[in-house]
Order: sequence, then structure tokens, then C-alpha cells
Amino acid sequence: MRNIKVILQYEGTRYQGWQKQDSTGNTIQGKLEALLSKMCGKKVEVDGSGRTDAGVHALGQVANFHIETEKTPEEIMDYMNGYLPEDIAVIQAEEVPERFHSRLNAKGKTYCYRVLNSDVPHIFDRRYVYAVPDELDMAAMRRAADALCGTHDYRAFTSNKRSKKSTVRTVDSIDIARIGDEIRFTFKGNGFLYHMVRIMTGTLLEVGMHKRDAEQMEWLLKEGVREDAGFLAPALGLTLVEVRYQ
Amino acid sequence: MRNIKVILQYEGTRYQGWQKQDSTGNTIQGKLEALLSKMCGKKVEVDGSGRTDAGVHALGQVANFHIETEKTPEEIMDYMNGYLPEDIAVIQAEEVPERFHSRLNAKGKTYCYRVLNSDVPHIFDRRYVYAVPDELDMAAMRRAADALCGTHDYRAFTSNKRSKKSTVRTVDSIDIARIGDEIRFTFKGNGFLYHMVRIMTGTLLEVGMHKRDAEQMEWLLKEGVREDAGFLAPALGLTLVEVRYQ
Repeated sequence: MRNIKVILQYEGTRYQGWQKQDSTGNTIQGKLEALLSKMCGKKVEVDGSGRTDAGVHALGQVANFHIETEKTPEEIMDYMNGYLPEDIAVIQAEEVPERFHSRLNAKGKTYCYRVLNSDVPHIFDRRYVYAVPDELDMAAMRRAADALCGTHDYRAFTSNKRSKKSTVRTVDSIDIARIGDEIRFTFKGNGFLYHMVRIMTGTLLEVGMHKRDAEQMEWLLKEGVREDAGFLAPALGLTLVEVRYQ
Repeated sequence: MRNIKVILQYEGTRYQGWQKQDSTGNTIQGKLEALLSKMCGKKVEVDGSGRTDAGVHALGQVANFHIETEKTPEEIMDYMNGYLPEDIAVIQAEEVPERFHSRLNAKGKTYCYRVLNSDVPHIFDRRYVYAVPDELDMAAMRRAADALCGTHDYRAFTSNKRSKKSTVRTVDSIDIARIGDEIRFTFKGNGFLYHMVRIMTGTLLEVGMHKRDAEQMEWLLKEGVREDAGFLAPALGLTLVEVRYQ
């Protein structure tokens, strides 16, 4: 058995997220497993670096799978791109050691949340940006973003209430950049909880709109109550940019 | 009657081009006229700076129309954006002198043709770029592009065979830039014939692939035979970027 690692791009708009479902859900993982199982003539399981929610996009999702095949990684990539729908693509494929696991070996991830800060629609990016026409206080958002970085218990920033797993994560940086009438929030960390990036974005946007105070972040982290944090920013603005290993 | 000038963005993918048709065609002009006629309670005609073909996009198409209304240009823009489909938007509106005509007064236009020069698909731009995985000789394409600039009879570069109108135009510049794995052809001129930008792009791509000689352009312009020029590059790669006035 050979272990193949692939880097994937997808537009999440018409999918119910990464993770396959028991029912007839339209998922990225489901599409990939069906395709590879056909290629190999037997069931193939695909592991991803993590789930992306329904509607979330990826520029650099990483997955791996064990298969028996004579094909080179490049041939596997070409085969997959030949059969995948136009909103999913393999942009890199390589053979990796047997023990490599795209989720367990992931050391860090980068997510980008794109906000269109204008009341004029942007036609070409309309599936990838969330429109917030309100004036946004960049300095206040940056102060709040800095306070959200570090190693903390982020349970106020997840929708997953009953997990017994640790909700401690390390966020290395939250960069907020204005590019024309777009504001890009770039999150780097060792891992993110369910909905964490979108709730952090919603909270930062509320700070930017002066609906909450930038100095409140420490308290939010300490109290750990989901209802005290901001709204869940819509999925369409979020893209998984990169997964880091080693 | 007030004369309103608007700047429009649209994704051409699902339209049969700018110009309204007698039948039940799905066109940009048709959409705008139907919407404004409804707003005004009587028939409104919309003039555009020029037609764009089926599938061609616009970042800065200009149109104007004469209407009787109490609304400010900003209110007209908001009304239009409230009812237009998500792939058409008004990004600017202003009142202009009675005599302004978006086509007759246009002094120049800028078009951009985007080529993805890679065999790896680019998911997010897939509706806006034409994929050409072949190696392309940038220097040869630039030599040919320079030879195509100037004031010439461009009848070899139009699909419109039987027009009695002049086929002389001035192309000010053709800039060819590589941005990552994308090559952008930017055409500036006083006006372009039917299919002219797409046939010039097809011809330049054939030069880039060494299927024809860069030094052939002068001869092509002189002979003026459509069949001697290159292929018609697909509509999806083309965007009308700007229309200039004054």
C-alpha cells in the first residue's frame, strides 16, 4: 500500500462541508472517496487535515489515502482532476511515508476570512466574501485581535458545547489587512475548534462596529461563555488557506 | 427628462451578451430595461458603450438612460442593485448632461484577457480565465503585440465580414503581464471591432506556442484576411475593464 498526500482546492458553496455523511450528503470527502474507490476497484478511505463546514472554501486543504496502484502521484492527480467536478481540484500530489496522517501530523493551519467593506456589491468575488457595509474601526479590531492571540481556552468561541475534548488552542497571529474595499482577517494557529474562526471574526466585526469593546476579550476568554461572544460570521467568507506539517 | 450614467459590473457566464434580442433572450441590456421600465412605469431605453458578447464579463461597462424620476442617482443605484440578479451590479451612478451618450462619446476602452498558464485548474477563477497549459514564449508574444498596435485596418481580426463600416481602429497598447501562473493581456484602444480582442488574443497565443511567427503581424494587417489570423479565444477569459470619455 502506498500513502498519497494531496493538496486540494474547492469552492464550498454547493457542498455540505468536508466530512462524508451516512445519508446521501454532497460532501468533499464523499466525492473523493467515491472517485478513488472507482479508480482502485475497492473501497478507499480519505483522511483530511480537518473538517470544513458547509459553504467554507479551501485553497490548500490537505488529505491522504492509502492505495494500491501503479500510477505515479502525477497520474493520480490527473486522473482525479479529470473526474472531479469543476469546483474541486487537486493542485499537488506526492507519495509520503506510510505513517503520515494529514490530521494527526498537522502542526498548524492558516484561515482567511474575507469581508467586503462596502455597500457596492462585488460581482466577481460574491461567493467568497461577506459584505459588511458598516464603517469598521480597524485600530479597535486589531487591539481585540491581539488580545485573542496566545494559548487560551477558547470554549467561548465554539458552537460545540458538549465536547469532552480540550478546548485549549494556540493562536499565533490574527492579521487584519485592508486591500481596497476588502478587509482580510488571517488567522494562524495550531488548530481551531468547531466554528472558532467564524465566531472570532463575528466578535471582531462587532468590535469594529463599536457594538462591543476591544478590551472585553480577556474577560470573554476567562468566562468562556459562548453567548457572550459575537455572532457566527457566514461560511462563504471563510477559506482554509494552508495546513502546515513537521 | 434626466440623463443618468451608470457604471456596471457583470459576470457574463449565463447571459447571451449585452444587447437585447427580439426573442426572449437573457441579456444584460434586456434586464436593465425591464427593471427601469418597471421603476418608471413606462418604457425606458438603455444605451451601452458597446456590446459585449455572450459569456464576456465587465468590471466597468458604461450605460446611460433618460428617465423622469424624483430619485437621486444614489437612490436609483440602490433600487437597481436591490432588484438586479446577483451577477449584475451598478457600482456608480451620476446625472450627466442631456447630450451625453455612452457609445457615441466613448473615447477609449480597456479590455483584459486572462489566461491560466498551467495544467492545474484554478477553482476560484474558473469562470474568468481561459486555461492554456502550453509553454508560452512571452518575448515572442510581446513582439507580436507591439506590431499589432497603432492605427490599422483590423479587418483580419473581426468575425463581422460584411460590414460596410470602417474597420480602421487605433490600438494604443497591448500589455502582457505574468502574475503567478496567470498571463494577462491588457488591450487599450479607441474602440474594438466585433471579436477583435478575442481574435488578437488567439493570434498572440499561437505566436506564444510557436505555431506562427511573431514577425507575421504586419503581413496579417496588410492582407486583411480573417482566415489567416488566429483562433477566436473563448469568451470566458475576456473582461471589459473600463470605458474612457472626454
